Amino acid sequence: MNPTACILVIGNEILSGRTQDANIRFLATRLGELGIPVREVRIIPDVRETIVANIVELRARFDHLLTTGGIGPTHDDITSPCVAEAFGVPWEIHAESFAKLEAHMAPGSFNAARQRMAMLPRGATPIDNPVSVAPGFSIGNVHVMAGVPRIMQAMFETLAPSLRGGRPTVSASWHADRLLEGAIAAPLEAIQARFDAVEIGSYPYERETGRRGVSLVCKGHDPDTVHAAADAVRGLIDSLGFVPIAGEPR
Amino acid sequence: MNPTACILVIGNEILSGRTQDANIRFLATRLGELGIPVREVRIIPDVRETIVANIVELRARFDHLLTTGGIGPTHDDITSPCVAEAFGVPWEIHAESFAKLEAHMAPGSFNAARQRMAMLPRGATPIDNPVSVAPGFSIGNVHVMAGVPRIMQAMFETLAPSLRGGRPTVSASWHADRLLEGAIAAPLEAIQARFDAVEIGSYPYERETGRRGVSLVCKGHDPDTVHAAADAVRGLIDSLGFVPIAGEPR
Repeated sequence: MNPTACILVIGNEILSGRTQDANIRFLATRLGELGIPVREVRIIPDVRETIVANIVELRARFDHLLTTGGIGPTHDDITSPCVAEAFGVPWEIHAESFAKLEAHMAPGSFNAARQRMAMLPRGATPIDNPVSVAPGFSIGNVHVMAGVPRIMQAMFETLAPSLRGGRPTVSASWHADRLLEGAIAAPLEAIQARFDAVEIGSYPYERETGRRGVSLVCKGHDPDTVHAAADAVRGLIDSLGFVPIAGEPR
Repeated sequence: MNPTACILVIGNEILSGRTQDANIRFLATRLGELGIPVREVRIIPDVRETIVANIVELRARFDHLLTTGGIGPTHDDITSPCVAEAFGVPWEIHAESFAKLEAHMAPGSFNAARQRMAMLPRGATPIDNPVSVAPGFSIGNVHVMAGVPRIMQAMFETLAPSLRGGRPTVSASWHADRLLEGAIAAPLEAIQARFDAVEIGSYPYERETGRRGVSLVCKGHDPDTVHAAADAVRGLIDSLGFVPIAGEPR
């Protein structure tokens, strides 16, 4: 069995609609490539009890819990002390991170708020931040990253080699213009029943040009089985008189 | 107290990273305008037990639960029977929706898969779909909508007048180029402490031009208090020698 992941997005700005999340898709894609499929995503507000309760629950249910957001210097950045509380460990200055941040700051500017970014739950391992130095961290199976996409992505690539992965997800897709989901539902279900180790998804599309159709996506861990299912899907499209096109629609 | 909302996004394609979600931000923004702040978002896979368990849990915890995805004609569209199961009611043909769909389809094309889109949990009220006829529905405090953004948005606007709203969220923002979060954290926290009915968020930005700064967002339900907090934020930016600019950065 592949290990599983959950993404916990922490931030009022996503829940209010102010900010379009740009991290979920990146993490879901990269984790899938590592063979660690994302099984759930939650977006929660900057509220201490909510953050603590979610970390306690989700780290018990999934092999990896990845969080984004709430590790800056301002009053609404409370992820790090919440993780310490969830683990029942002190939240304290991490000497090495403190020294790195101090060296990075202009003389006289390393104030209390910035020093707070050098505080980690006891026992955490920092995740380097090549952009703005203030680290993320891992503790147990919880991996805490920044919310700013450029910083989050850099942190993830630092973290990735240390994650125990599984068999990568293999994907094969066919699509056809003018095809309608209602026309293929029954035979597609029969293909799904034949290939129970493959997940077959059916996604209607509509481009701005008005071009419409359906995209059929086969995903699994065994390349031979995934491609056999995709062959059956291609055959189905063909048998209905539509033109199967490999891959996803552009 | 304002009523609360939770959004439940149902779909493997979001969890795998195949598809960028385009519904959360729309719904969060519109619900905020109606005075129904979104307090949590979950993204879950097309798995029966998972969908049922989440509906049972979330409809008890929030005043409104809005779902997107999984109401088409194919085998991976299982939201509607899962809602019936969560409510403990039969899942059955809804006569009026059946008649509408039948009238909409080309003669001979209203097959079993398409008829399935006319099945609703007993007691549900359909939500009209002006785009492709197959309805969403409300049952109790659960509102079930399509995943295709254009259809979801049309369904939401049909649904919105029937939702019991609260005081709309009022927002006032200032930003300043070159300002750093670490420089304002302490005095900003003091402003937050003075205005405990206002939620003050601090969001660093970086534009593709390389222009950077911090955006400070005050949100609440009482316009006078929100604007008083925003005045204090503007004064803080000014006192540090930066130029306060009203609104969010472009």
